Amino acid sequence: MSEAIAFGHPWLAGLVGDAEVAALLGPGAELAAMLRFELVLAAAEADAGVIPGEAALAISNALLRFRLDDAAMARATARDGVVVPEFVRQARAAVGEPHARWFHFGATSQDVIDSGLVLRLKAVLPVLAARLAAVAAALDGLDARFGERRLMGRTRMQAAIPITVGARVASWRGPLARQAARLERLAPEILVVQFGGAAGTLEKLGDKAGAVRAALAGALGLGDVPQWQSQRDRIVELGGWLATTTGALGKLGQDVALLAQAGDEIALSGGGASSAMPHKANPVGAEVLVALARFNAGQAGGLQQAMMHEQERSGAAWTLEWLLLPPMLIATAAALATAARLAASIESLGG
Amino acid sequence: MSEAIAFGHPWLAGLVGDAEVAALLGPGAELAAMLRFELVLAAAEADAGVIPGEAALAISNALLRFRLDDAAMARATARDGVVVPEFVRQARAAVGEPHARWFHFGATSQDVIDSGLVLRLKAVLPVLAARLAAVAAALDGLDARFGERRLMGRTRMQAAIPITVGARVASWRGPLARQAARLERLAPEILVVQFGGAAGTLEKLGDKAGAVRAALAGALGLGDVPQWQSQRDRIVELGGWLATTTGALGKLGQDVALLAQAGDEIALSGGGASSAMPHKANPVGAEVLVALARFNAGQAGGLQQAMMHEQERSGAAWTLEWLLLPPMLIATAAALATAARLAASIESLGG
Amino acid sequence: MSEAIAFGHPWLAGLVGDAEVAALLGPGAELAAMLRFELVLAAAEADAGVIPGEAALAISNALLRFRLDDAAMARATARDGVVVPEFVRQARAAVGEPHARWFHFGATSQDVIDSGLVLRLKAVLPVLAARLAAVAAALDGLDARFGERRLMGRTRMQAAIPITVGARVASWRGPLARQAARLERLAPEILVVQFGGAAGTLEKLGDKAGAVRAALAGALGLGDVPQWQSQRDRIVELGGWLATTTGALGKLGQDVALLAQAGDEIALSGGGASSAMPHKANPVGAEVLVALARFNAGQAGGLQQAMMHEQERSGAAWTLEWLLLPPMLIATAAALATAARLAASIESLGG
Amino acid sequence: MSEAIAFGHPWLAGLVGDAEVAALLGPGAELAAMLRFELVLAAAEADAGVIPGEAALAISNALLRFRLDDAAMARATARDGVVVPEFVRQARAAVGEPHARWFHFGATSQDVIDSGLVLRLKAVLPVLAARLAAVAAALDGLDARFGERRLMGRTRMQAAIPITVGARVASWRGPLARQAARLERLAPEILVVQFGGAAGTLEKLGDKAGAVRAALAGALGLGDVPQWQSQRDRIVELGGWLATTTGALGKLGQDVALLAQAGDEIALSGGGASSAMPHKANPVGAEVLVALARFNAGQAGGLQQAMMHEQERSGAAWTLEWLLLPPMLIATAAALATAARLAASIESLGG
Repeated sequence: MSEAIAFGHPWLAGLVGDAEVAALLGPGAELAAMLRFELVLAAAEADAGVIPGEAALAISNALLRFRLDDAAMARATARDGVVVPEFVRQARAAVGEPHARWFHFGATSQDVIDSGLVLRLKAVLPVLAARLAAVAAALDGLDARFGERRLMGRTRMQAAIPITVGARVASWRGPLARQAARLERLAPEILVVQFGGAAGTLEKLGDKAGAVRAALAGALGLGDVPQWQSQRDRIVELGGWLATTTGALGKLGQDVALLAQAGDEIALSGGGASSAMPHKANPVGAEVLVALARFNAGQAGGLQQAMMHEQERSGAAWTLEWLLLPPMLIATAAALATAARLAASIESLGG
Repeated sequence: MSEAIAFGHPWLAGLVGDAEVAALLGPGAELAAMLRFELVLAAAEADAGVIPGEAALAISNALLRFRLDDAAMARATARDGVVVPEFVRQARAAVGEPHARWFHFGATSQDVIDSGLVLRLKAVLPVLAARLAAVAAALDGLDARFGERRLMGRTRMQAAIPITVGARVASWRGPLARQAARLERLAPEILVVQFGGAAGTLEKLGDKAGAVRAALAGALGLGDVPQWQSQRDRIVELGGWLATTTGALGKLGQDVALLAQAGDEIALSGGGASSAMPHKANPVGAEVLVALARFNAGQAGGLQQAMMHEQERSGAAWTLEWLLLPPMLIATAAALATAARLAASIESLGG
Repeated sequence: MSEAIAFGHPWLAGLVGDAEVAALLGPGAELAAMLRFELVLAAAEADAGVIPGEAALAISNALLRFRLDDAAMARATARDGVVVPEFVRQARAAVGEPHARWFHFGATSQDVIDSGLVLRLKAVLPVLAARLAAVAAALDGLDARFGERRLMGRTRMQAAIPITVGARVASWRGPLARQAARLERLAPEILVVQFGGAAGTLEKLGDKAGAVRAALAGALGLGDVPQWQSQRDRIVELGGWLATTTGALGKLGQDVALLAQAGDEIALSGGGASSAMPHKANPVGAEVLVALARFNAGQAGGLQQAMMHEQERSGAAWTLEWLLLPPMLIATAAALATAARLAASIESLGG
Repeated sequence: MSEAIAFGHPWLAGLVGDAEVAALLGPGAELAAMLRFELVLAAAEADAGVIPGEAALAISNALLRFRLDDAAMARATARDGVVVPEFVRQARAAVGEPHARWFHFGATSQDVIDSGLVLRLKAVLPVLAARLAAVAAALDGLDARFGERRLMGRTRMQAAIPITVGARVASWRGPLARQAARLERLAPEILVVQFGGAAGTLEKLGDKAGAVRAALAGALGLGDVPQWQSQRDRIVELGGWLATTTGALGKLGQDVALLAQAGDEIALSGGGASSAMPHKANPVGAEVLVALARFNAGQAGGLQQAMMHEQERSGAAWTLEWLLLPPMLIATAAALATAARLAASIESLGG
């Protein structure tokens, strides 16, 4: 049914979607992350003497050949509100007796889902960082080629005084440099393990809780921090970063569209066709940047609404987060790719 | 790639998605609507003497057996920003010479896309209306069964004075009755043809423009109104209706979740399971209603941002609308279905 | 402290604020509405035999010369979360014994606040309607003067084909005509009394509840409907109307700003000055329309979030509504006035 | 007219407003910041030999006794869209001939407004930081007093397993610690000078531009960075920080309201009164935290929309920022003060 959504639409996804990042986020990657979490958890718990070594071995063996029953997962999720209970049921059946009870031992749904999200973000963020660097490099290229040319500076939509192309490009480039630096600071904040057990206290692990969590984090390549299941500020920070990135690209898009309208200070290759007017070359990429920026701006506000997890875990706020974050990640990836193509399509700038 | 989005996710779609409405909106329905628009347009133009009758026949024959090249459509859309130019190219190739030029005659992308959207809404709105009626009926049933029982009235999250269950149910029921009436007024406003040609003036149809548009609207079962390609108030009205509907259901969900927390005034069947705590029965449907309400609230604000189409057509604002409206429709459909199930799961209310 | 907010800022309020509507909404009007509600309520209750006639007379006498202690009101509101308890305390002191207990009899905070809001809206909506008509008339004037001139039609920010000025003006005018019609339908939905007592049941009025409410509504010139204290769909509908109105004006503003940028198809009188560039004449009104449209779009989404009143009354959702609705009303009033001035400043359009 | 807005309303401002921060932001502080900018600029330009030393002296003398004509300012701002042209006109008249032309030399509106904003933020951010520390300390106090007590852990609004009060307090405390650290990183990013001249190029200062800007920044106690007039990412970062802060406090408020509803695990002093039910003690502060969090969440999304400054300066996006940022700052200040009072009112937690 996903084809009705623009990001997954067979015709529109090439315009506003992103296959690479969607694959890094989608159910295949999610299942892999969940399995990895459980596998590493069992190993860490066995090392700490929390569960039998044999159980960890049996779990490992079972998970490596585990095949999910998607249909049962869909049915159960509609009832449970989260995929983990059915996943655990199926996985325990695969592990079999007498070890099944040690699977997912001391963990809860949120540990699997949130750590699984973080593991996928660990793959996505470098993609975004690389694309951001590519856009920045493309802008540097524009600056190198056209930077000393003259461009009419415009304030409040009116001709002001001439500036250089370099000055305009700098206004596109500046926020991207800062966003790159912000992502470097933000990534270690976000890429941290979630492990708290039923209500955040790891009560089943006793005095081994700290050691298991540290080992789990280490093996997953994540930071080791106290459980944050009802503390969503890191997720919201990420959402802000995504929207600010697309916002900066939206300004680029808006400027290019305005330049293309005036027509005398920019030359673009490969504009979009019109079904009614063959003479037109529409600055489609520029407009898409504006659309994705306004999209993400709205979603960032929504994500802020999702901070208010009541008590130890909010089904409502958590579900809202699931609705909002993946489209933002995909929109950002698409905007970065679009911006790189748009910059590459600028054949001339200024006069 | 759509599986990364919750509404199309293989496990989550049962929780927050809606297969029926997604199918009524998706690319299959969209192509059918586009073909229908073009077919009816050719017939209306032939009747008016704008295009040759033979051309209309050839177009009709070709469209009835037309098969879209999806891959080419995706590639072209990434370039053109809209699916219509490639659709027209493929369809003209299918029509063949000498009639190809009469296909899509006098029309433009926006005519096909917006009329195609309206045709799909014509199928979706009755589904939403029927589900709304079902929720209302379920609430009437609760009122009939439990309405005279006593419930603690609560204001500002504090016990106030006892009320009846009927009074609480009325607070859930009232907005739904008004939303049903609003939809009846809104539907004829929304279900109108879009037909304007390249820049809204139907310049290629000369003095036949009015007759062709009226015939087109009539054959499509839509209202006949002047082109509205840059006037998005009807779409925004629909978005407001969707969000207000989910908002009303969100209040229901919030109340049920609060009742379930206190535990002494409600009994629910079939709560969601926990992976860590077998004793729990989570009010999952109630939480989903809150999540979908907050989701739609945010998207409604975004849709308001998309009103500002610059000039005769804004690629940016239009693309933003495509990103926002389908998820809102699906979320509303899902919320209505969830609310009906939730109401049906209430085994006891009040005391 | 209000001067820090743009709508109340001594320098900016002329740009984005509106003195007339602010006065119709502000604390003076609010107190008048509250007093009127209580006075009419006492009379209606006396007529119905719910309170002694003498009490109603004493209440009437006291209220007509009532002077509020603002400082005590501010202190108490910070504690109570709503102004009514302290208002009732002061008013009861003014009424004095033995009638004080009959003041506000059977009513609760929400009755006073929400009916008081509606009474103020009853004054504001006609102002908005009149201004909307004025903008529409100004656009009709532009159409009459310049409608047959030629204008370059632009789609996706690119020159498409020539259209008439009339066609462009129609795209500004159409939504305003529909908004005027929508307001006529909306006003009687919104202008309804709120009267429910402590938890919505009017429990203190016994079998006189219906008669008192009907008399109260009649005397206030409001529709008589069951209490809607936790049903905020009417308020949200109003918010949607406000945002759609400013959105339509924002499209006008965006178009005028783009015309002014190109410079060859519009002449505006009285543009804004620049501190650095005396030659410029900035299309300030056009930009303000865009800003107010984007402002209201965001607030409309926020207002949708405020629909979820938990139980019989939500302090949180209600307070959120108080934060959002007045600025939206003022922004809409300001946008309408700005649009009328902008339209009047268009000295030439098209070529 | 500002009294119609809740933040400036004479009765409501004690509930949702903040007199201290409003004063640090309001027109008095703004004029002081503008004067300081111009005074320091003249001195820096004189030092660099850009303007005569005598002129700087005359400017200094005039500004120290400058009195603004507020009414003229309001009229001119409605026309110019920004306060600076009229401010410069009045100030130049005060400076008098022959030095008037050296006042505001090489600067533009945005330099004065944006640097003036930053100067006011320089005063506001420490207030927010101090209040954040106070809330954190109050939560530490709760942890010290009640941390080892038992509290029912709740997930998805259902009783899960017992946790400690300390675990719940940690979920309130964690985001605040991170927000404090984020503000320390953010402040130097934000507290930077804006100085670019008419179109960002400081074209009137020639090779002295860098030296003057550095001296200006140094004297104002701000970081020295290239002009950022169309690069609003720093402002948006601040908006994100404000919303995340209120979001974290909103979770605290939501939890306290839920605890107060159940009633058996918390004791609060000083709840709000009801006009109808003297027995109630409403958790008003808790609800206000939720309202302010949802308010700021929406505004943060709006501020993201304001990133898209077209070209060298957008009147529309800039005006939108003016509408959104001050209320967010005040709401955050109010939320922090409310949270501190709420924490102090908790007389008992857990059991």
